[in-house]
Amino acid sequence: MPRNEKLMSGGTIYYNSFWHGLSGTCRIFNHADNRMTQSTLYQGLPAYLTASQIAEQVKATLAEDIGKGDLTAALIPAGTRASATIISREEAIVCGYAWVQQCFEQLDPGVVLHWQVKDGDRLQPNQTLVTIDGDARAMLSAERPALNFIQTLSAVATHTRRYVDAITGLPAKILDTRKTMPGLKLAQKYAVLAGGGANQRLALYDGILIKENHIAAAGSIAAVLKAAFAMQQTDNIQIEVETLDELQQALEAGAKSILLDNFTLDELRNAVAINQKRALLEASGNVTLTTVRAIAETGVDRISVGALTKHIQATDFSMRIQMIL
Amino acid sequence: MPRNEKLMSGGTIYYNSFWHGLSGTCRIFNHADNRMTQSTLYQGLPAYLTASQIAEQVKATLAEDIGKGDLTAALIPAGTRASATIISREEAIVCGYAWVQQCFEQLDPGVVLHWQVKDGDRLQPNQTLVTIDGDARAMLSAERPALNFIQTLSAVATHTRRYVDAITGLPAKILDTRKTMPGLKLAQKYAVLAGGGANQRLALYDGILIKENHIAAAGSIAAVLKAAFAMQQTDNIQIEVETLDELQQALEAGAKSILLDNFTLDELRNAVAINQKRALLEASGNVTLTTVRAIAETGVDRISVGALTKHIQATDFSMRIQMIL
Repeated sequence: MPRNEKLMSGGTIYYNSFWHGLSGTCRIFNHADNRMTQSTLYQGLPAYLTASQIAEQVKATLAEDIGKGDLTAALIPAGTRASATIISREEAIVCGYAWVQQCFEQLDPGVVLHWQVKDGDRLQPNQTLVTIDGDARAMLSAERPALNFIQTLSAVATHTRRYVDAITGLPAKILDTRKTMPGLKLAQKYAVLAGGGANQRLALYDGILIKENHIAAAGSIAAVLKAAFAMQQTDNIQIEVETLDELQQALEAGAKSILLDNFTLDELRNAVAINQKRALLEASGNVTLTTVRAIAETGVDRISVGALTKHIQATDFSMRIQMIL
Repeated sequence: MPRNEKLMSGGTIYYNSFWHGLSGTCRIFNHADNRMTQSTLYQGLPAYLTASQIAEQVKATLAEDIGKGDLTAALIPAGTRASATIISREEAIVCGYAWVQQCFEQLDPGVVLHWQVKDGDRLQPNQTLVTIDGDARAMLSAERPALNFIQTLSAVATHTRRYVDAITGLPAKILDTRKTMPGLKLAQKYAVLAGGGANQRLALYDGILIKENHIAAAGSIAAVLKAAFAMQQTDNIQIEVETLDELQQALEAGAKSILLDNFTLDELRNAVAINQKRALLEASGNVTLTTVRAIAETGVDRISVGALTKHIQATDFSMRIQMIL
């Protein structure tokens, strides 16, 4: 494996020249597209997330943390090699392979990572996720950004899996929402998949979700649904209702997907009975691990949970680096 | 206040043309720099965070959520006006003014926000933060990205304030770390300030933090410190030690800032006694709200807490929108 000449060239703030060499994006993107290992991902990348997007996100995050250079890494002699492992410190569902891979590869194209887990795997404490061999300076600089990605995305996958496990044996699906970390939305939505959940609409552009204000502007549930169907922009048209009466109106107007906002368990059971499987029913609003099973038992098809992506309890990982001196 | 002609021009997916109009950055940046209200910030913006950076971050986040257009907002007649309030749902320290302001202004340059709180204020439940008057479509599109920013940054400020309050009356300072959300680091570090905390080094470029691997590569604590001083890149040079013996070596080598990694309370007390105020002492490693006061009582100068920025318990806000029909 050829070493990176720019990294080897030394100089006190060694990233200055290296970093500028990456300012053209094609190199990173081709690199990412060619080398990403599908089998280490959770069922490959979903349609909404490309290797190029991940590479660009990692590039921005490395720039945020390295800027004009890693002052401390310059204390390591240029050309020093190192070997490292990332270890889990608690039970968790792992997610973040592609982001970790990119953090190390963008700073050291010659680095070699051997993964022992794939996204969606359940980790035990003190399990080795990956071994890493490459340039010591680059490895030290990539360490924290890589851990920040994997601890955040694994948090989402782990949190999702707790909800999925809580409704084992019931047909309902656990869905995410648009309550996400700014800038991390698509990555978080992939982590929800890795945790066994499903994605609600990704964003404002790929589905219609009609709420109170849209109904008010159109004048009625029937009128707003008629307008939405007439737009012919998407088949993904959902309407949020707050009462059983509104549910009835939505069904009569031909709604195929209905969000039941903050319904009690009794109201959810009534909604399922009224629906007679005409529309897809989704329960939403302050769902917790304590309440989710009872909600699923009402017979709703989907349960969306803002907590999956808005609350983060970072998973604990550590990276152990051994210099080859 | 002139309305935005592009927003008024209608069309089903109205953001298409509007969004493309924003692809040059100067307009947003000038806008942000001119209009940001210093008094609503927490002691102004820190040196590491400019209004332009915030505007760019918001632009990327809006693009992530809106993309080719908000399909649902198109159900509201073009030109409809609306009035809204953002309300707190729980006690919290608020942070996020500049990001919220930008979310609404970038989609509707004619929008008017009246803030009733400033970053760092303690909110009571059901308190009105801000009233917003402007274009209804733009307001609906900006709602979730704006709430995502303020719920995440207020979470960091609130979490920080709990640690700061836990050591009331003691001289130690609460510091953040580099364990942050990818892409949100500088925003989170500002939120730490709003919560009454202080910032550790921002990133790899603005300080030297010598750890085990750097010591191993240099051969000794004395050798690595000598090399770091000789680099003359920064006055912000800190060394991490794991034992009292290493502390002694660091002090003898002239260290002015020392991080005590995972020291017990007894070890911290001994470290403070050995130090005799020669170096700044920072305790670090698995600090919790339960342990932080006892740590501060040992007499260390600073306590750094990864949890402030790696764990997020999103603060609960809601936005109430009234269409003017």
